[in-house]
Amino acid sequence: MPKVGQQEVRITILPDKKGILLQTGENLLVALRRNGLDIPGPCNGAGTCGQCKVRFDQGAPTPNNEDNRFFRQEEIKRGWRLSCLHDVEGPAKIYVVPQTGRLDTKVRIDHVLEPKEFNPGVSVHPLCLTPPRRDDQRADTLRLIEALGGGAAIPLPILRKLPTALRASEFVLSVVKVEDEIVDLLADDRANDIYGVAIDIGTTTLAGYLFDLGNGKQVAVHADRNPQLAIGGDVISRIQYGQEEGKEGFAKLQSLVLHGVNALVEKLAGEAGIEPSSIYKMTVVGNPTMLHLLLNVDPTAIANSPYAPVLRDGVALRANELGLAIAPLARVEILPAISGYVGADIVAGMLYANLGEREAIELLLDIGTNGEIVLAVEGRMFACSTAAGPAFEGASISQGMSALDGAIHRVYIHDQELVCSVIGDKGARGICGSGLLDAVAELRTIGLIDKSGRLRRTKHPLSLRIEGKGAAVRFLLSDGVYLTQKDIREFQLAKGAIRAGIEVMLECAGVESADIDRVLIGGAFGSSFRPESLLHVGLLPPINVEKIVSLGNSAGQGAKLALQDRKIAPRLQQLIEETEYVELSFIKSFSSKFIKCMQLPTDEQILQLQLER
Amino acid sequence: MPKVGQQEVRITILPDKKGILLQTGENLLVALRRNGLDIPGPCNGAGTCGQCKVRFDQGAPTPNNEDNRFFRQEEIKRGWRLSCLHDVEGPAKIYVVPQTGRLDTKVRIDHVLEPKEFNPGVSVHPLCLTPPRRDDQRADTLRLIEALGGGAAIPLPILRKLPTALRASEFVLSVVKVEDEIVDLLADDRANDIYGVAIDIGTTTLAGYLFDLGNGKQVAVHADRNPQLAIGGDVISRIQYGQEEGKEGFAKLQSLVLHGVNALVEKLAGEAGIEPSSIYKMTVVGNPTMLHLLLNVDPTAIANSPYAPVLRDGVALRANELGLAIAPLARVEILPAISGYVGADIVAGMLYANLGEREAIELLLDIGTNGEIVLAVEGRMFACSTAAGPAFEGASISQGMSALDGAIHRVYIHDQELVCSVIGDKGARGICGSGLLDAVAELRTIGLIDKSGRLRRTKHPLSLRIEGKGAAVRFLLSDGVYLTQKDIREFQLAKGAIRAGIEVMLECAGVESADIDRVLIGGAFGSSFRPESLLHVGLLPPINVEKIVSLGNSAGQGAKLALQDRKIAPRLQQLIEETEYVELSFIKSFSSKFIKCMQLPTDEQILQLQLER
Repeated sequence: MPKVGQQEVRITILPDKKGILLQTGENLLVALRRNGLDIPGPCNGAGTCGQCKVRFDQGAPTPNNEDNRFFRQEEIKRGWRLSCLHDVEGPAKIYVVPQTGRLDTKVRIDHVLEPKEFNPGVSVHPLCLTPPRRDDQRADTLRLIEALGGGAAIPLPILRKLPTALRASEFVLSVVKVEDEIVDLLADDRANDIYGVAIDIGTTTLAGYLFDLGNGKQVAVHADRNPQLAIGGDVISRIQYGQEEGKEGFAKLQSLVLHGVNALVEKLAGEAGIEPSSIYKMTVVGNPTMLHLLLNVDPTAIANSPYAPVLRDGVALRANELGLAIAPLARVEILPAISGYVGADIVAGMLYANLGEREAIELLLDIGTNGEIVLAVEGRMFACSTAAGPAFEGASISQGMSALDGAIHRVYIHDQELVCSVIGDKGARGICGSGLLDAVAELRTIGLIDKSGRLRRTKHPLSLRIEGKGAAVRFLLSDGVYLTQKDIREFQLAKGAIRAGIEVMLECAGVESADIDRVLIGGAFGSSFRPESLLHVGLLPPINVEKIVSLGNSAGQGAKLALQDRKIAPRLQQLIEETEYVELSFIKSFSSKFIKCMQLPTDEQILQLQLER
Repeated sequence: MPKVGQQEVRITILPDKKGILLQTGENLLVALRRNGLDIPGPCNGAGTCGQCKVRFDQGAPTPNNEDNRFFRQEEIKRGWRLSCLHDVEGPAKIYVVPQTGRLDTKVRIDHVLEPKEFNPGVSVHPLCLTPPRRDDQRADTLRLIEALGGGAAIPLPILRKLPTALRASEFVLSVVKVEDEIVDLLADDRANDIYGVAIDIGTTTLAGYLFDLGNGKQVAVHADRNPQLAIGGDVISRIQYGQEEGKEGFAKLQSLVLHGVNALVEKLAGEAGIEPSSIYKMTVVGNPTMLHLLLNVDPTAIANSPYAPVLRDGVALRANELGLAIAPLARVEILPAISGYVGADIVAGMLYANLGEREAIELLLDIGTNGEIVLAVEGRMFACSTAAGPAFEGASISQGMSALDGAIHRVYIHDQELVCSVIGDKGARGICGSGLLDAVAELRTIGLIDKSGRLRRTKHPLSLRIEGKGAAVRFLLSDGVYLTQKDIREFQLAKGAIRAGIEVMLECAGVESADIDRVLIGGAFGSSFRPESLLHVGLLPPINVEKIVSLGNSAGQGAKLALQDRKIAPRLQQLIEETEYVELSFIKSFSSKFIKCMQLPTDEQILQLQLER
């Protein structure tokens, strides 16, 4: 989007003392990354992970609420800030923590779609009408439409508001339009209060991004748990609940997610200091089941062969049709899906990754309870979904947990020493998906896990951490936190399903893994995985680690693009129509591939990967 | 509309023994009138007035419910039927009651618009879909749209119905579309049940016409009182009520009229033996206040200078937005208006009268509580509204009543003898608007009322019927029913207002009354007035009586046209945009014209009218 009054300022990066020139007003994290600085940020600007912290040795901005939440008071004083939540304001000296190991891959700007135009389709029009006179008896509606310059539909609730609104304001007011429909009448002084929100409804997490639609700026981000978790952890258990309880079951599930979205929106609005009733557009992504449940459309068919969903194309409706607590006539756009298991979240990710627009062979992965895979081969696209199970979200693991305080989220083995990185200041309470991935990868690399996945004692000093035997054998990660043999088996099921899906996709497209130019990792958890670990467990076929690019929460990013630019809809439609969906459960060779892919890499393969590094 | 399998049959008209050829399937009343037979029918096919009765001496059709309601059993046996409610079925001998006096003017077919095309925009599509299979995992919505041949919006309630409807019917069902929107899913066997209803919301009377949208036939007609009468008799008193009671007042008024319309629709549906939920389109006309109240849009501004309404253009919405008890997603079209006092009822009448489409000077009158006047001068159109008061509806008259059983509706003085025609079998209970008009006209003609409106005793034998004196003087019409001096004064106010409006219109257009080619009398009461009487009281300027044409309930007829043909909307828009509205209360000369026009014609003028007859 165009920036007014931008200024070029000099920033010195410490400890390297490298000088760079940045534009004021730009997001600091984005600007630093563009200048080649490797700054982690798994939450991708949601202000929730705290990993993008930098220290201002000169020119520190005023700390904001998130800064105060993440840092202690001394840290704030020393200049620590979250780079994702500050804009470039002026010259500064900034200390960027040197990255040991690739905690996060750079989002290179040429891999993703930036909003071409800020054109959300929501506009506000301050009007000064002439009141009716003896020689001007025109109807209120005509008066309004003519002042607007024509062409606007007036829905019934606005008709009802109109006579009083005109007369109370003495015919001076602002009109909010969404597309060609008048959705609100505002007293003149509120004329700039128009907002929009992009929502990503995950099975586990709801993420929201609030935008000021007047200036195009993101003004708040927030994430919450999906309240449907109380019913079940995955889509199938929720569908089963709905079926068992009849119509009321699905109504209950809808009411839970609506409640969650409304609460999330309220937090976003509170953070930005606005009223939720000033939100006039909402874009929504999520997997097909989540979106069926949001609409209270029975998703039962998704759970049963042949897995046909009710909905595929996008749906546009008014907020009050669903019971969303934003402006009653706000336009709500549910983005389109490809199939019953490749949903709007993936389509949004494809949009954000600009998939199919480059002459390259690219693989987009979204790793979660389901692992969705899209393979683009010079414009042709294939998609599938694998039931990876909840291991990557920390569930089904003996001490598994979400990526919250106390979770081991990184495991390094270096010079025969084990280092577990724990989220937050306190000790380890459990292990989350990325920690599990690292643990298996590192233990396989040093040989304490063999290629079949079995924990085994070797001469390696860390063998001492292996306790118990038989089915009860386990590895001590940190005080009181173990990786069990069963956890490794669960992990193998999950990674095997995804790898088998990748193999089927490659076969469908008639290409080899060596042909892959790039692997884009998207999804809510996408940027939390270490690319090396994905290779060392064999979740990905052996490719150069540099080919792996993290997109962050690509679903949320795609929802933001749709919020910002109404002209993006045809591209979404093109994506869903041009992508060939492959139902893995109908592919004969899938089960044998799955069994094979549960294996971890052989010793030779591991050696090869280490040599290439 | 095109008829399939029509056949020409010979009908002998008694007592003249004239033979005519008619097409089977056509409405009998319309066919007889087209053949020059003068058959009254003030309710214009609503089956409520009973005046279009004919006697089949051969070939009588099976009596229907209305026949049984209007005729005694012996009459049915002798062949009496209501001609408006039967189609031509086969050869017959039909006795048509010779008309003494012009009870009703012929509706000559070249004066009105016939539906050019039967194209209501509602269609039913029987579909046989293929269920999802392993090699066809398309979404339900895609399956449906592709079977429909593309291009249909699916609103949320249909999305919610879809998965169950498809599976319960084993993918064989019918889809009802209104315009490009799917509004219902039907089990296959009901596939032809699509209906539409045209509603005329009068201040006093609600009239409804039910059509089978499958074959284009009218299947039921009914009229009821507007339940808002309990609040007030005219629009101003209802607006005042709403204002005094605040928002709840208008909500109450809306709820009353909705209740009335729903009850009317239920009766129509019951008569036709259908479910109200099979009605997918409704067109609504009425005066602006009635339509504002229907929508619960505050009409206060209509009651206060400068009388600007909130609404002018038509409004299309879904039945469930208003709470109408028809198919929830049925399309409800509120027809457009010209100003705060010239409403959709008049625009519908203009449409029906095909006003402005002929190279002629034509005057359209709608006589009710308000008298609306439209003057078309070779394509240019002027409209105004006069506050005639409720005299023409029988109110404000000492023994006034609606045109119901017991009302004197015709008064003739012939050979010095007075004949009062009373509605129904019983004696006179009061006098309705048309009776009042006749009474004043006839008494003025024989000189018992002078040109100033004063009752006076002369040598005429009927002078004996004048009783009392001074302000209490009155004329005995029938046992116990009197026309009082005050009634005559009320009548003069009403007719004076209309005549003054006509004079202003003529002045605006720069034409003389002698230039008028045709006067079209529309409105709910239009066809109940005797043209001669309109001349003899001077409500109309002196013109040849042959120039006066009754249109029947032109508002209802226009609503029917809009129901039958969706392509008529642009014509309505053209009518409202091209008609110049004249606000009489802002015309200086109006009051002096009004006072002058309260006078009745002079003796010379009466003589002249009698000579011309």
